Amino acid sequence: MSVESNPPSSGKPTSHNPGQKNQAQAKGGKDDRRITSRADDYSRWYLDIVKEAQLADHSAVRGCMVIRPYGYAIWERMQRELDDRFKATGHQNAYFPLFIPVSFLSKEAQHVEGFAKECAVVTHHRLRATQDGKGVEVDPTSKLEEPLIVRPTSETIIWSTYKEWIQSYRDLPLLINQWANVVRWEMRTRLFLRTAEFLWQEGHTAHATEAEAIEETLRMLEVYRDFAENVMAMPVICGAKTAAERFAGAIETYSIEAMMQDGKALQAGTSHYLGQNFAKAFDVTFQNKEGKRELVYATSWGVSTRLIGALIMTHSDDVGLILPPRLASIHVVIVPIYKTDEEKTRVYAEADKVEAELKAQGLGVAVDRREGMAPGAKYFDWEMKGVPLRVEIGPKDLDNGSLCIARRFVLEIAGEDEKATRSRKKVFLPRAEALTKIKPILDEMQKQLFERALAARNKRTRVINSMAEFEAFFKNEGGGFAWVHWAGSAEDEEALAKKYQTSIRNIPLPGQAPAGAEGPGVCILTGKPSTQRVLMSESY
Amino acid sequence: MSVESNPPSSGKPTSHNPGQKNQAQAKGGKDDRRITSRADDYSRWYLDIVKEAQLADHSAVRGCMVIRPYGYAIWERMQRELDDRFKATGHQNAYFPLFIPVSFLSKEAQHVEGFAKECAVVTHHRLRATQDGKGVEVDPTSKLEEPLIVRPTSETIIWSTYKEWIQSYRDLPLLINQWANVVRWEMRTRLFLRTAEFLWQEGHTAHATEAEAIEETLRMLEVYRDFAENVMAMPVICGAKTAAERFAGAIETYSIEAMMQDGKALQAGTSHYLGQNFAKAFDVTFQNKEGKRELVYATSWGVSTRLIGALIMTHSDDVGLILPPRLASIHVVIVPIYKTDEEKTRVYAEADKVEAELKAQGLGVAVDRREGMAPGAKYFDWEMKGVPLRVEIGPKDLDNGSLCIARRFVLEIAGEDEKATRSRKKVFLPRAEALTKIKPILDEMQKQLFERALAARNKRTRVINSMAEFEAFFKNEGGGFAWVHWAGSAEDEEALAKKYQTSIRNIPLPGQAPAGAEGPGVCILTGKPSTQRVLMSESY
Repeated sequence: MSVESNPPSSGKPTSHNPGQKNQAQAKGGKDDRRITSRADDYSRWYLDIVKEAQLADHSAVRGCMVIRPYGYAIWERMQRELDDRFKATGHQNAYFPLFIPVSFLSKEAQHVEGFAKECAVVTHHRLRATQDGKGVEVDPTSKLEEPLIVRPTSETIIWSTYKEWIQSYRDLPLLINQWANVVRWEMRTRLFLRTAEFLWQEGHTAHATEAEAIEETLRMLEVYRDFAENVMAMPVICGAKTAAERFAGAIETYSIEAMMQDGKALQAGTSHYLGQNFAKAFDVTFQNKEGKRELVYATSWGVSTRLIGALIMTHSDDVGLILPPRLASIHVVIVPIYKTDEEKTRVYAEADKVEAELKAQGLGVAVDRREGMAPGAKYFDWEMKGVPLRVEIGPKDLDNGSLCIARRFVLEIAGEDEKATRSRKKVFLPRAEALTKIKPILDEMQKQLFERALAARNKRTRVINSMAEFEAFFKNEGGGFAWVHWAGSAEDEEALAKKYQTSIRNIPLPGQAPAGAEGPGVCILTGKPSTQRVLMSESY
Repeated sequence: MSVESNPPSSGKPTSHNPGQKNQAQAKGGKDDRRITSRADDYSRWYLDIVKEAQLADHSAVRGCMVIRPYGYAIWERMQRELDDRFKATGHQNAYFPLFIPVSFLSKEAQHVEGFAKECAVVTHHRLRATQDGKGVEVDPTSKLEEPLIVRPTSETIIWSTYKEWIQSYRDLPLLINQWANVVRWEMRTRLFLRTAEFLWQEGHTAHATEAEAIEETLRMLEVYRDFAENVMAMPVICGAKTAAERFAGAIETYSIEAMMQDGKALQAGTSHYLGQNFAKAFDVTFQNKEGKRELVYATSWGVSTRLIGALIMTHSDDVGLILPPRLASIHVVIVPIYKTDEEKTRVYAEADKVEAELKAQGLGVAVDRREGMAPGAKYFDWEMKGVPLRVEIGPKDLDNGSLCIARRFVLEIAGEDEKATRSRKKVFLPRAEALTKIKPILDEMQKQLFERALAARNKRTRVINSMAEFEAFFKNEGGGFAWVHWAGSAEDEEALAKKYQTSIRNIPLPGQAPAGAEGPGVCILTGKPSTQRVLMSESY
C-alpha cells in the first residue's frame, strides 16, 4: 500500500493542524486506521505494525521473510551496538561455512537430538534443463556423497575448526563471534518472532578452565541485559533455564526474559556454558603450562532478528511502531507546511537548514518532501513508523522564529484527560532553544520508554504462594510474570504447562527477583521445600 | 602453526636489533621463512600469505572457506567504507531470502543459462536417526514439493518482491543493497579468489527511465573505482565487458579490472545495466505521471570477498601481507623491549601510554605482550601480517625520550643498496614528534602503495599494434595489460584465448586508456577498422 494512494483526511496546511489526526484516531475513525487495536486482536496488531511500518514481508519462499529497509535499519543499529560491546569485551568476528556435513551432527549426542531434525538439506549440486527446454530441474547425476545441512547453529562446524587452531594454552581464550543467517525449518512462522531463515550473531569461545568459561557465559548474559535495557529500553529478567529448556549440548543455559504487552514472556537472548561436550565430540585439546593435554571448555551465546519482534511488542501502541531513540535510524522527521509557492520556497529553505544543523549533532534526520500529500497524512505516516520526534515548519514559525516539536508519545498521567495528553505532545520553542533541546528530549524519551515498560511489567507481576492464586492469576486476571516456589517434577511441570500454557522461564540470578520474592519457601504444588522462587509465565 | 612453537632467531633485546631479521630474510635463511617467494612459486606464495597471516582456512566442507578473524577484520573495514558510500549515494540495506524456488530461475531466459547450473540444491527438510541409532540421514518423507537453490545471486527473488513494492512512479527509484552470503558450486576453488560460498554485497535498483538506470550503473562503477583506488590503493581500469563476458540477463556489464603482480587481470567489481529484462520476467510495472503503466528499468552491482585476494596480490611481498593503512585493523603494533623485570615494568608503562595516545587519535593499536618471544620474532610476525607501522620501545628510548618507528615497507629507490633501504625503514624520533608524525606517515604509505601499484602496472602495460608484438608480449616478455585494436569475431577471440590465455578484459570508458592509446585504428588480427583499443590480458 502506498501512502499516496490512500491518503488519510488532510489537515489545514498552515495551522499545524493540532491533534486533528490523533483525534480521528481516538474517535476510532475506521477509514484512517491501518493498525488493528491491541484490544481487538493482539496478533493482528503485531502483524499490522510489521507490515504497515514496512519492517518485513512474507516472501515467496515458505517461512522466509524479506526484511525491508526500514526494518533492516533497526537491525543495523542493533548490530552496531552489540558489535561494539562484543569488541569491548575482547571478541573478534570471523565467518564459518553455511553448510554442515550431516555426519558432524552425530558427534554430540544431545546436539543431534536438538538440531538434526527440521532443517534445510542440500543433496545435489546441479540443475539441468527440463526435456521441454522451458524449465530447470534437479540433475540426478549431481547427488552429493554426503548431504549437507544449512546451519541451524554453528557449534559443530566451528568446533571442527577450533581443533586446528587450538594447540597450546597460549591460543586460549579464543573469543570469536559470527554474524550470520541460520535456517530452522519451522512449521508455524511469524515475522521476526519465528521464521525459517533468520539473522543472528553467535559467539563461540574456548577457554582453558571451567571457571573462565562460566565467567564468560555470565559476562555475555550481562552484555545482553545491558543492551536490552539500555538500548532497547526493554527490562529483562536474567536467570538459568531448567534442564528441559537447555540448549542441546549445554551444561547450563542462561536467558534474558522480557515481558510483552500481552503479559507473555519472550526469550530475548541466551548464553550457554557448554562444558567440555563439544571439545570431546571434536577432540579439541590444548597443552597446558605443565605440558599436559587437556580438553577445552566452551561457551556459545546469541541473539537474533527476533529482537525486532520483542521491540515492537514492548513499546508500540495502536497508532503504530514506537522506536527507542537509540535504535531509530531517523530521530527527527521535518514536515514542511505551506500553501503558496512562495511559502514553500521559504519553508523548504528553513527545513534544509534545520536538517543540516540536526545532522551536525549526529542525529538521523529526514525531510518529508512528498508532494500532493497533506501534512496530517505525513504526521500519521511517521507516527506509524515510530519516528521519535517531528519538527513542523510553517510560515508562521518562520515569522515567529520558532519551531514546533511533536513527540511520538508522552507518558500518560493518571487522571489526565486526552486533550491534556495531546497538548503535552507538541511544544513551540524559539528556534535556537528547540535545536538544543532535541537531544535532551530524545534522551528523556529513551528513559521514559524503559520506565513505562518496567511499570507495565510490574503491573502484571505477581508473587504467588498457592495453586489457587496461580490459577486465578492465569485464568481470571490475564496472567503475566508469576514468582513461585517450585519443586515439582518434570511431569508436574508438563501438566502445569498443559493446563495453563505456562512454563518456568528461568531461575533468576541473585538480585533479579522483585523485592519480597527472595529467599526459600515451599512449592505451590507439592509443598516441598524450595530454595528460591522461579519465574513462570506464558511465552512466545 | 603458533608463533611460539617456531620462533625465528631472536634479536638482542635492548638494541632494537636493527635489520637483523630482514638481513636473515634477504640472505634467504630458509629456517625463518614461512612464505614461498613469488619468484619461486607465485600461487604457493599467495596461499602461504593467506595461511600464515591467518586470513582464511579451508574448511571441512568442499570449496567453503573459514574467514579467520584477521582476514574478517579486513572485510569489515571494506564493508564500512563501501556501505558509507552506498548510503551517501542514497541506498538503503535490506535482506532477502537465502533460498530461491527452482521455478524462479526459468523466468529470465539468459539468467537461467548463467546461474542455474552449478548450485546447492535443497530437496528435503528433515533428518532422521539411522536404524543403528548412531547417526542421522535424510528423511525421504520430507521431500520438498519444489526444490530450492541457495542463492547464487538474488535478482530473481528480489524482483519477485519488487513486484509487490512498486506501484507508482512515486515508489521509484528504489535503491537497495544487500550484504549476504552466496553459493556457486565451483569445481576448482582458491581461497578468497574462487570459493563455493563467498560473502558479497549486491545492489538492486529500479528506475522509471532507461537514462536514470544507466546513470545509476555508471555511478556505482565509479563508487567501486573510488573505493579500489583510494581505499585499497589498487589502480583499476573501468570499462564495458564484451557480449561474451556479460552478466546473464544484462544489457551491459561494466567492470573494474586491476593488475595483479603476476601481470594478470582480476575483475574486482561489476555493475550491470539490466534494462527491462527482469521487470518483464517478473511483471514489474509502475504507473507513470500520466497514469500509464510501464515496465521498470533495473541495475545490479556487486563486489565480494574476492577483493581480499586482489588486495593481497596487489601489494604484498615475500615477507608477507602488506595492508594499506585504510584497511588495516591494526595500524601500529607496539613491541616492548627489555631484559630485566625493572626494565619490563618501565617499558610496559610507556607502551600503555603510547597505546592510549595513539588510540585517542582514532588509530588501531596493539601492544605485543607475548612472553617468551624475542622482539625479532615479534617483528617478523607483524611484518608478515602486514601491520603498517611498528613502534619499538626499549629502556634506551625511555632514557632518550624517543620512540623508534619502523615501516612495513619503503619505496625502493633505483640504485639504492639494501642497507640504505633498511635504514630508511626505521627512524628514531623525539617522543612528541613521533606521536604527531604517525598519522602523516600512514597517509604517505597509503599514497605510496597506490603509486607503487600504478608503477608496476605501467611497467607491464604495452600499447600493441601487431600480432607479432602481441605474441612477443605474452609469450616472451611475461605479458601484462595489452592495449590493442580489435575487430575480430567471437571465434577469433576464442582462438586467441586458447593460444595465449588472454581475453578482452573490458572496453575502456573515456579517459581510461593510457596516453597514446586513444582514438581509432585497425584490428591487429583482421586489419579491420576499430574505433578504440580494448584491454587484453590473462586473468583470474
